[in-house]
Amino acid sequence: MSTEPDQTPTYVAKGQEFDRDMTYVPDRITRDARTPEHGPVEGRLWPVEPGRYRLVAAAACPWANRTLIVRKLLGLEDVLSVGMPGPTHDQRSWTFDLDHDGVDPVLGIHFLRDAYEKRFPGYPRGITVPAIVEVETGELVTNDFPWITHDLFFEWTEHHRPGAPDLWPAELREEMETVMKRVFTEVNNGVYRCGFAGSQEAYDAAYERLWTALDWLEERLATRRYLMGDAITEADVRLFTTLARFDAVYHGHFKCNRQKLVELPHLWGYARDLFQTPGFGETIDFEQIKQHYYVVHTDVNPSGIVPLGPDPSGWETPHGREALSA
Amino acid sequence: MSTEPDQTPTYVAKGQEFDRDMTYVPDRITRDARTPEHGPVEGRLWPVEPGRYRLVAAAACPWANRTLIVRKLLGLEDVLSVGMPGPTHDQRSWTFDLDHDGVDPVLGIHFLRDAYEKRFPGYPRGITVPAIVEVETGELVTNDFPWITHDLFFEWTEHHRPGAPDLWPAELREEMETVMKRVFTEVNNGVYRCGFAGSQEAYDAAYERLWTALDWLEERLATRRYLMGDAITEADVRLFTTLARFDAVYHGHFKCNRQKLVELPHLWGYARDLFQTPGFGETIDFEQIKQHYYVVHTDVNPSGIVPLGPDPSGWETPHGREALSA
Repeated sequence: MSTEPDQTPTYVAKGQEFDRDMTYVPDRITRDARTPEHGPVEGRLWPVEPGRYRLVAAAACPWANRTLIVRKLLGLEDVLSVGMPGPTHDQRSWTFDLDHDGVDPVLGIHFLRDAYEKRFPGYPRGITVPAIVEVETGELVTNDFPWITHDLFFEWTEHHRPGAPDLWPAELREEMETVMKRVFTEVNNGVYRCGFAGSQEAYDAAYERLWTALDWLEERLATRRYLMGDAITEADVRLFTTLARFDAVYHGHFKCNRQKLVELPHLWGYARDLFQTPGFGETIDFEQIKQHYYVVHTDVNPSGIVPLGPDPSGWETPHGREALSA
Repeated sequence: MSTEPDQTPTYVAKGQEFDRDMTYVPDRITRDARTPEHGPVEGRLWPVEPGRYRLVAAAACPWANRTLIVRKLLGLEDVLSVGMPGPTHDQRSWTFDLDHDGVDPVLGIHFLRDAYEKRFPGYPRGITVPAIVEVETGELVTNDFPWITHDLFFEWTEHHRPGAPDLWPAELREEMETVMKRVFTEVNNGVYRCGFAGSQEAYDAAYERLWTALDWLEERLATRRYLMGDAITEADVRLFTTLARFDAVYHGHFKCNRQKLVELPHLWGYARDLFQTPGFGETIDFEQIKQHYYVVHTDVNPSGIVPLGPDPSGWETPHGREALSA
């Protein structure tokens, strides 16, 4: 997102390809603030501590959606609370407009920006979710979404529920990283590259990249119940949040329209399988998803009218994918 | 369409419901310029005469598409020539930009507006297709699309090919008129009412009206091969041109997105059946259709980017509807 002189936010990258700003606040929350085994340590290390932090997510946002699912899969609801901004926002910030008086009951703020500013006065980048905020100080800790879910798994282990799934099986990690990287660049971000393309050429290239990846996934999921085999992993969480939004917003609003998800039998069965798994479907709010994309991106949809379709009833239908598990 | 002071055409009816201007040039072309048996006689009567007129259509436009299909079904190609403006146009007019030097080889004009102006200097309404122009004078004869196809059937009879279909069976006419009226107000025009709605309320109401009608048609076509029974009639031509555009433009661009046509089994089988019938499919140019809607309606799609989807290959697949015929 960029902000033009008249303060109208623009999303379409005029004349060029969409390029996501991937610079986030690189702090990590780790067990006893230890140096983590994986990933970059470019910011502060904060200790895991029940009740100390609040996860700010938003039902609309696919990146925040990952954290809501992982938190539920791991049973972290009692140690890490959640604040939920509403689906729409102006150029300034996500806001807690769904809460009583428009104020998050724990953080006591209306604009999520306030938590960013508390930590970094004059914070110059986008105010994004997911964001983890320290409750006592009201300061942003991190918004570095790929590492937030990673660390919920590796660092909050002692607080996981009994029987929590192994979202990062050690023996699959190398292959998982390859799969997740391709899913991120080509699919999670690929839909935005289509929707925010600033020229026909940029869109055409983005569309080809997206569908090449979706064809690869459709084939991969023809013989595997989940992306990495018989069990759900972090890779599935990351793909699911894009698939859940595909027909509701990416197909039409972002012109990712070779087919709808419902026309891709393996991906559609896979997406329903996850949707019907505890921890996934209950984090999806199709109305908030549609409100967000169709209202916020005024340069894509100037009328701000939110479509009434698609009919979401198919998400609850049998998927028959159990047969693919060992 | 309205034109704002800055000459930017707007299509969305800000704050209100879309209301199509149905005032056309009411002239008719009849056998020996006789008074026609059906319909209004509010303008001049012109005689049927091979080679005297040129039908100006456009592959993009659903209203013009009707005339292209009926002309082929009745075998009128040799007595009524066709000029084809390109898919896009500015606020001034449809133009012959696909022709050599951008000029229609018979009428010798670039802007279709010139034929309107020749007949009515200062013509104040929209320059629409289909339009029938007298070749010798270059003057518009009529653009009153419902009566153009009607009169091609009833008045050009002696020029029909042997075995031409009875598109208006006398015993069905009353029921046909009822069906065609509902198809026109709720479907043909209903998709525009969704796409050009100027408020959420207007859109919501338009969407409900459209889908109520599509549900009625889906049910009607479950037991009838064609709208009126076992044979193709004018009613099928009028429904087909909207269905052919449904997934390509109305589903996404106009937010008619409860389902795609391909998700409605009877309507989709019916549409493919017609598409594969000589006279129908060859008049459909999905690229021109997408170019028209996505480029011309700048207030709906400001980027002007034309989607690469949907995949049209399904149109050629077997439909199995022969079993419904007697």
